[in-house]
Amino acid sequence: MAESQGPQKTYETEHSTKGAYVTGEEFTRDTNYIEDRVVADVDAVTAAPQEEPSSIGDPRAAGLTAEAQAWPVEPGRYRLVAARACPWAHRSIIVRRLLGLESVMSLATPGPVHDVRSWTFDLTTDGRDPVLGTERLQENYFKRFPDYPRGITVPALVDVPSGAVVTNNYPQLTLDFSTQWKAYHREGAPDLLPEELIDEMLPVIKRVFTEVNNGVYRAGFAGSQRAYEEAYDRLFTALDWLEERLADRRYLMGEHITEADVRLFTTLVRFDAVYHGHFKCNRNKLTEMPNLWGYARDLFQTPGFGDTVDFDQIKAHYYVVHEDINPTQVVPAGPDLQNWLSEHGREELGGSPFGAGTAPGPIAAEEQPPGANPLY
Amino acid sequence: MAESQGPQKTYETEHSTKGAYVTGEEFTRDTNYIEDRVVADVDAVTAAPQEEPSSIGDPRAAGLTAEAQAWPVEPGRYRLVAARACPWAHRSIIVRRLLGLESVMSLATPGPVHDVRSWTFDLTTDGRDPVLGTERLQENYFKRFPDYPRGITVPALVDVPSGAVVTNNYPQLTLDFSTQWKAYHREGAPDLLPEELIDEMLPVIKRVFTEVNNGVYRAGFAGSQRAYEEAYDRLFTALDWLEERLADRRYLMGEHITEADVRLFTTLVRFDAVYHGHFKCNRNKLTEMPNLWGYARDLFQTPGFGDTVDFDQIKAHYYVVHEDINPTQVVPAGPDLQNWLSEHGREELGGSPFGAGTAPGPIAAEEQPPGANPLY
Repeated sequence: MAESQGPQKTYETEHSTKGAYVTGEEFTRDTNYIEDRVVADVDAVTAAPQEEPSSIGDPRAAGLTAEAQAWPVEPGRYRLVAARACPWAHRSIIVRRLLGLESVMSLATPGPVHDVRSWTFDLTTDGRDPVLGTERLQENYFKRFPDYPRGITVPALVDVPSGAVVTNNYPQLTLDFSTQWKAYHREGAPDLLPEELIDEMLPVIKRVFTEVNNGVYRAGFAGSQRAYEEAYDRLFTALDWLEERLADRRYLMGEHITEADVRLFTTLVRFDAVYHGHFKCNRNKLTEMPNLWGYARDLFQTPGFGDTVDFDQIKAHYYVVHEDINPTQVVPAGPDLQNWLSEHGREELGGSPFGAGTAPGPIAAEEQPPGANPLY
Repeated sequence: MAESQGPQKTYETEHSTKGAYVTGEEFTRDTNYIEDRVVADVDAVTAAPQEEPSSIGDPRAAGLTAEAQAWPVEPGRYRLVAARACPWAHRSIIVRRLLGLESVMSLATPGPVHDVRSWTFDLTTDGRDPVLGTERLQENYFKRFPDYPRGITVPALVDVPSGAVVTNNYPQLTLDFSTQWKAYHREGAPDLLPEELIDEMLPVIKRVFTEVNNGVYRAGFAGSQRAYEEAYDRLFTALDWLEERLADRRYLMGEHITEADVRLFTTLVRFDAVYHGHFKCNRNKLTEMPNLWGYARDLFQTPGFGDTVDFDQIKAHYYVVHEDINPTQVVPAGPDLQNWLSEHGREELGGSPFGAGTAPGPIAAEEQPPGANPLY
């Protein structure tokens, strides 16, 4: 494992089978991905070299990073492999549904409990993905790079004809769903990256990524009491900032949902179920921060968000995979989930989730999360 | 270890260094104690044989169980060894203070983190108890029984002249503080065992013991997912019963505090800080059960209860000692404690904590808990 040289300790995360590590005492996320892109205009993108990859992606990215390749947008060609348990993969499930890409990009959902080698397609009756034919996502990485040395991560976009992973670069993936797949968006799809808001949005997305999305892991995987306490302080400082920001804004960027909301939601929906106890992010529950809790419920009750959540897979994943911090692998029965459906009162702040667009229709029966969700 | 024969697995608990075990999958508490008593009339008690010891004690106990001895009540003779971390020991600290026994029975508080052998007096500057002169409570057990085979538990009442443990029978200990030490109670001491309420109180105390005091351990130490889920259901069934019971009763038995309140309080005050996360008792926090949370704050704000609490010692104990379930030994920084001082509104239910009696005076400076407590 490339990450485990020197003083680093490898950790299994829900995102990757070996995609993160602790340097010294502080948890650090591996940011080394397959940076290929699926784009509307392959020639234009190939001609434009890009700088270092961004940890949050670049909604205006015009080109490719070194060694990356461009693949053409093509309906029916790619399969999105995204475990429902994983917050980084969950983003792509939500954006695909908000934009109505279901009919042009199929979805495979590996089970919540991967082993040290790979996420696996163990939720199907025969243990193989019905389209890709593989048992383990690792096989699809190997079809791309036979000696692929890094973590087998989700989300991964797979080229169905060859079975090879095209990209696992999750920060860019959902942005490209918005910008590159426009021709295939459903009618009424929301603009998750409104041009006039992008300059304000990127610092918000960045802070949410470093302090919240990743902040909960920094607390949970801290290698010492001191590193944990620093991580805890950073996390709750950011949550206090968000609590204040959401006092008079219905959504993170104002009147309508954007990519920034998707990225915050996937952490918030896991907060009380997993991060509060398992990662010791326990100054308070999400339910004890009125604006954030109202906001999270508002999104949960919005088509495309809550209807993609599988609380059983989320809990099973963290509590079973992280044997280092939960050696009994017992999965908590709580918390009670009915409160996700309670009135949030956020309509009073005005705004409308989909702006000039419309809500997606009901989720397809075969894509409905099989596990606990108070909506079903 | 006597408990570890057969299929049993020993567990370190906060009460004992080896006082509990799992039979098959379900956690079972060792109920084998030194059942000596310190009594007002040694001759009368010695003459009266008693049946099996009770898991909750017997407030009307007139005699001794087989092989137990009687010791005379005598001011200054005994030292109560009670770790602030331990809920079973915490009872005795509270009752001693409510009844005003401080001047006749001194207090030793072992540190929160015992080792496999013993609770230790490691909070003192030289690591020895200043009165007993011992470093480990185990030495005081050995002065009584040189080959003492069972767990070194707190609370333990020690005979200062000989240094020997007199009793560690916690269910009976606080009852005897009420019934046998009457001559030394402070003026205005409350009657924690009102004769007219005892018949109603014993089943309440029993259910609180089996379902709540011990119920949190049954969940936390469950040896399987199934045993855990059964324990979780039992626990919250009992908490729902208490929530309802406290809707129109200020205290468990009505108008005034009793022994039953002391026994429930020591679990409730640890609930959100430890049991909710560490023991996975996470259907909801205590703060999410309005009557129980109001009741717990009412008691916390009553002299003799909250002023004995050391949240740092409580958290350090569970999270450091139980390496089996928290191998990183990182101690959570949360939850925020200020809410313990918030208004509870329970005065509206009437009643008065001390009945015909009065509140104890301020806690002596040297007995003030050194760790986190929003009262200080």
